[in-house]
Amino acid sequence: MSAKKTLNIGMIGYGFMGRAHSNAWRKVSNFFDVRYRPVLKAACARDEAKVKAFADIWGYESVETDWRKLVERRDIDAVDVCVPNDLHMDIAVAAARSGKMLLCEKPLARSTAEGVAMCEAVEKAGVLNTVWYRYRRVPAVTLAKNLVAEGRLGRIFHYRANFLQDWTSSPDLPQGGTGLWRLDVRAAGSGVTGDLLAHCIDTALWINGPISCVAAMTETFVKERKHNLTGRIEPVGIDDACAFLARFANGSLAIFEPTRYARGHKALYTFEINGERASIFWDLHDLHRLRYFDHRDESVVRGWRNIHVSDGDQPYMSRWWVPGLQIGYEHSFVHQAADFLEAAARGESAAPTFRDALETTKVCDAVLASAASRAWVDVR
Amino acid sequence: MSAKKTLNIGMIGYGFMGRAHSNAWRKVSNFFDVRYRPVLKAACARDEAKVKAFADIWGYESVETDWRKLVERRDIDAVDVCVPNDLHMDIAVAAARSGKMLLCEKPLARSTAEGVAMCEAVEKAGVLNTVWYRYRRVPAVTLAKNLVAEGRLGRIFHYRANFLQDWTSSPDLPQGGTGLWRLDVRAAGSGVTGDLLAHCIDTALWINGPISCVAAMTETFVKERKHNLTGRIEPVGIDDACAFLARFANGSLAIFEPTRYARGHKALYTFEINGERASIFWDLHDLHRLRYFDHRDESVVRGWRNIHVSDGDQPYMSRWWVPGLQIGYEHSFVHQAADFLEAAARGESAAPTFRDALETTKVCDAVLASAASRAWVDVR
Amino acid sequence: MSAKKTLNIGMIGYGFMGRAHSNAWRKVSNFFDVRYRPVLKAACARDEAKVKAFADIWGYESVETDWRKLVERRDIDAVDVCVPNDLHMDIAVAAARSGKMLLCEKPLARSTAEGVAMCEAVEKAGVLNTVWYRYRRVPAVTLAKNLVAEGRLGRIFHYRANFLQDWTSSPDLPQGGTGLWRLDVRAAGSGVTGDLLAHCIDTALWINGPISCVAAMTETFVKERKHNLTGRIEPVGIDDACAFLARFANGSLAIFEPTRYARGHKALYTFEINGERASIFWDLHDLHRLRYFDHRDESVVRGWRNIHVSDGDQPYMSRWWVPGLQIGYEHSFVHQAADFLEAAARGESAAPTFRDALETTKVCDAVLASAASRAWVDVR
Amino acid sequence: MSAKKTLNIGMIGYGFMGRAHSNAWRKVSNFFDVRYRPVLKAACARDEAKVKAFADIWGYESVETDWRKLVERRDIDAVDVCVPNDLHMDIAVAAARSGKMLLCEKPLARSTAEGVAMCEAVEKAGVLNTVWYRYRRVPAVTLAKNLVAEGRLGRIFHYRANFLQDWTSSPDLPQGGTGLWRLDVRAAGSGVTGDLLAHCIDTALWINGPISCVAAMTETFVKERKHNLTGRIEPVGIDDACAFLARFANGSLAIFEPTRYARGHKALYTFEINGERASIFWDLHDLHRLRYFDHRDESVVRGWRNIHVSDGDQPYMSRWWVPGLQIGYEHSFVHQAADFLEAAARGESAAPTFRDALETTKVCDAVLASAASRAWVDVR
Repeated sequence: MSAKKTLNIGMIGYGFMGRAHSNAWRKVSNFFDVRYRPVLKAACARDEAKVKAFADIWGYESVETDWRKLVERRDIDAVDVCVPNDLHMDIAVAAARSGKMLLCEKPLARSTAEGVAMCEAVEKAGVLNTVWYRYRRVPAVTLAKNLVAEGRLGRIFHYRANFLQDWTSSPDLPQGGTGLWRLDVRAAGSGVTGDLLAHCIDTALWINGPISCVAAMTETFVKERKHNLTGRIEPVGIDDACAFLARFANGSLAIFEPTRYARGHKALYTFEINGERASIFWDLHDLHRLRYFDHRDESVVRGWRNIHVSDGDQPYMSRWWVPGLQIGYEHSFVHQAADFLEAAARGESAAPTFRDALETTKVCDAVLASAASRAWVDVR
Repeated sequence: MSAKKTLNIGMIGYGFMGRAHSNAWRKVSNFFDVRYRPVLKAACARDEAKVKAFADIWGYESVETDWRKLVERRDIDAVDVCVPNDLHMDIAVAAARSGKMLLCEKPLARSTAEGVAMCEAVEKAGVLNTVWYRYRRVPAVTLAKNLVAEGRLGRIFHYRANFLQDWTSSPDLPQGGTGLWRLDVRAAGSGVTGDLLAHCIDTALWINGPISCVAAMTETFVKERKHNLTGRIEPVGIDDACAFLARFANGSLAIFEPTRYARGHKALYTFEINGERASIFWDLHDLHRLRYFDHRDESVVRGWRNIHVSDGDQPYMSRWWVPGLQIGYEHSFVHQAADFLEAAARGESAAPTFRDALETTKVCDAVLASAASRAWVDVR
Repeated sequence: MSAKKTLNIGMIGYGFMGRAHSNAWRKVSNFFDVRYRPVLKAACARDEAKVKAFADIWGYESVETDWRKLVERRDIDAVDVCVPNDLHMDIAVAAARSGKMLLCEKPLARSTAEGVAMCEAVEKAGVLNTVWYRYRRVPAVTLAKNLVAEGRLGRIFHYRANFLQDWTSSPDLPQGGTGLWRLDVRAAGSGVTGDLLAHCIDTALWINGPISCVAAMTETFVKERKHNLTGRIEPVGIDDACAFLARFANGSLAIFEPTRYARGHKALYTFEINGERASIFWDLHDLHRLRYFDHRDESVVRGWRNIHVSDGDQPYMSRWWVPGLQIGYEHSFVHQAADFLEAAARGESAAPTFRDALETTKVCDAVLASAASRAWVDVR
Repeated sequence: MSAKKTLNIGMIGYGFMGRAHSNAWRKVSNFFDVRYRPVLKAACARDEAKVKAFADIWGYESVETDWRKLVERRDIDAVDVCVPNDLHMDIAVAAARSGKMLLCEKPLARSTAEGVAMCEAVEKAGVLNTVWYRYRRVPAVTLAKNLVAEGRLGRIFHYRANFLQDWTSSPDLPQGGTGLWRLDVRAAGSGVTGDLLAHCIDTALWINGPISCVAAMTETFVKERKHNLTGRIEPVGIDDACAFLARFANGSLAIFEPTRYARGHKALYTFEINGERASIFWDLHDLHRLRYFDHRDESVVRGWRNIHVSDGDQPYMSRWWVPGLQIGYEHSFVHQAADFLEAAARGESAAPTFRDALETTKVCDAVLASAASRAWVDVR
């Protein structure tokens, strides 16, 4: 219909993230005036019946059952990687060699070594790339970033972040297989560190700068679980919970704690930043709100402000509804798709690039190393 | 692609509601396994350039600039009415005569008389119909309805609802014209009564049954405003604020208060229900939460429960993401579209039908009559 | 010990309020540098054993069993009236004639007629007087008053107040007798109107000025209860719940709702005021906090401020602990005792005087009259 | 008046804690039916004029200016130690030798070595003793302890606690002298560790059992401050902020973070405990509330319960007002006084005894040692 340039998307994977990304690609042009119009060209997964059903629901024009074929198709401009972590590197390297733009679901990789290979591949090929650390694009989080960048908080003293879930508290839950690969160390690489903590780290590095060193502990509360792929009781290889101390390069102190054993919390990612003049708090369970305290307010009416981030002058919000009407989880993906398309039209990658996301993986590796050695570890 | 039956939608209007409905039609098949697949067949509005741009963004296959043409097109199955209230009746009556299914934005009509004509038209024509009182389909509100219907609250003593906004507090805001027709009594019929209160009444009647009588007051705080269509300062004909007492047929007492002069509230629709055994509270600013108090809980751990309505066993939520990840305002429209399509596949109208919605208009009329007469008025 | 003047208190009643007032008299000199030092001279109640036990606990120097004797004792300077409402008038009139200062528990009287007699008595006798509408002296409420008085809210549009309890929801609760006289219309005069609503009205008149007219409804949900004094099932004469609309002299609209049938709320007195520029919200369940919204704040960081009213520059708070450490319910009585003693040292009555409190009783009477007549009633 | 036994209190110190304790002694008999009636026998401090003024306000019968004299007075039964930490040991040891009961303000001592000496002194002398870790007696905290002790949470996975303040954020604040001795390492022994963290540890050990090992970091953000006693700019010797990881003997993981550099928080002591079946959260800024999540609740109405801990069946609350009316900070001292007096009447010490409190000091010492060595340290 429109005279806009099109960008053909090849989607690999059809799980939770496959749906979230597909929704973003379908909606982005309805709400954002982007110069590229994405086209859902092909969906790819091993199970032909399932990928066809998926393609039918989302309107993909074709299907593939071998990702190696997909990444070589001439009619694909960008490959969107929504598969378990153990496939990220191989797909990304092959797609980069094939000259495709890359959008990779987080975390970038299972390890720094894998991540380095991926960065080198996209940089050598000169292809645009991004990693879906979507929480940067929650309007309240973008607002938090802006407030810090404007210097409103002054010198930063403290950063603290949690990512609290409770869905693996029961020892009866199996590991491995569909919907459960996050509990399988081979597929996931690590437990809460790569899954939950990576989100916390990406936000922290973006807002507060580099982390210098960490001291961590991890724990596997349930030592054995039935594995759905083998049918046997097997040792659990992932970390169920993690906590660590950190020092940022800017001199601030930090604590981080991701876990899947915090009863009552489903996806409670929270962060708080305390500065000399002001503080900020956000949580994912009410993602459309930001708490802000400004010490410069007149003392008798000073208090934490509860900002309902829905007005048109807030990040991304002019594109949605009217003040007071909240958006939800999926909108952060739409925002990332919009930013990716706009950056691509300018010939640039959207942040965080693979290289940006590698810094998060380095911190995660340092955390795991510190937990293993029971010593402070520098992030390099 | 799929073998599903299609349902061709003709959309009239392209404002805030035109966008919200179009989004619902585009998304519904991605998330709900409905037997009808909606097709965005035609968009209609007077301004040809604007309606073409709208059609391009949303993927409507064609445009019309005269709604009379649209409602007579043979390739249109259902007409979706997203225009100011003063056009609801004419469009609905004509579309019904033309045998179209009808989806009408709320309120049904500017008055009971108009609403009666609309009900008679759709019933005589035997066409499926619904009114977009979308808040019924916010999962937390549906849950509230279910809890009351299951008898968990016992005898109901109190119902109280507010709809608080602040966007017209300034006397500098003009009335009338694009985006401001809600301040123009000719286009809107009334002020906060038909706009905000109608939502509160629809929910209340649905959950708590009929209202018997009301005692109301209304106020127009700003008596004159510049009219954007005439360019002149003109008297303001709408009610800026309203409050009323009510008695329900079930013996419970109620207070309602809609206003656009409540500083700090953007779209704060709240309701609370107090029963013999339990109570419920909900608000639109955090629509993904329901507060629930159950007096039967053990006393030392008794307290208001803050339910994050995101688990898969909550209404509609199995179709979205995972526990802890919230949905937003627009999803209630998707739910209504899904319910409409499923009901249509069964040959039924989805609630609230025009006839259901007429009850809300009757209450609004009684409220305005009571405010004018300063006396209790029965709802008939 | 100190060289301060003493003020001899004669306390009548030893129930809930007798304890709250005694605590205030005992503590006030520890925290406030008042020029009068109160002395607990005598406690009075009909049951000699009980009043002796009470006097022993609180350190009253003597007891009386006939209030007529107490009010005539030469060594009593001030009479503190903590008995059911049906005795307020007789005691106050007699004490005034005897030249005693008067501190009367709220409400002033069961009716305007009784209240007028009391005002005339204290004014004719020229004795200092006050009524214990203590919530004025909750620091957050005093702060709210100050913010409105400073004009920060601008023109006031809305006032809404609730007083929600649930302790009489069960039909098994008896009426009358110790601890239950508030359910006995003879002792209490009315139900929630005189008990709960009176608090809301006192605050409202103080902060927002006179109320012009009201339209009310009341309800008695449980029609009969066993009476503890007679042992028989008797009709319930009080109002269980009440709701009314009001217009203030300043043009603002109001709704008020007191009830004892709101499950989940124990003593939830709340008020909210919406002005042209700012809004305020307070509730008794977290009485140490005030919510404040200021539209003049910069838009991207604008939100409701949650003020923890514990800093030393907040009303009364320099006398207590350190920032962050909250005070509780009983402190409002200490503040009223301090203000009374300081005013007395200047030869003045502390607000609200009997005459001030009469205005509240007039509103309550208008509310009951409106509920009976189903018509708007002017407050005179 | 009453026939109760009296207990003569000798108070040393008249600062913030001197007031808080005096208030407790004066109020306890009004609200609790304790077998001992405390008598405010003597107050002691070096400045005679000030201690006389203090004694006058609180009703102490006499004054001393040398604590050595006070602890030897025959008419003193119990010595209440409310002076800076550097005097705790000397006073306690001397008072124990003199056969006095001992109530010591927290922390027990500046170091484990001092604490051991104090424990040995009271145990050798056989005198009753307690340490004022008052937050145990906040009703909501006692309730939390009870819920865990009853096994409602099941296996404990996580414990996290913060104590966040912001009063030293400015570099202009001096150190040392009246009201500021907490910033002087000689008087205080340490910074936030002994002051704030000690509270968190006492609660944690009480509710969740022993801590096995810790990994900590501390920071002094402002390196030099003017010292009020010397008038010179001097290095700051205290820790401004601290954070540490811990493992409890029961296998649960923990993070703790006390700081005085968290803008917007005045005295925000919070703790959360996550168990297999339930979770608990409490914070000092709203100390009358407890949040409780029980996974066994029916899923559609499952949510965090917000318990307003004011009903008569909650710990200590039958002694105060009526449901819905909150108590404040100072009440925890009254509760400890009541428990001390009741235990004393039975010939027992009230928890936490000096020996109990020594465990908290050991953890604080391990934290400081770990921060210095950058290694995990076992608590012994």
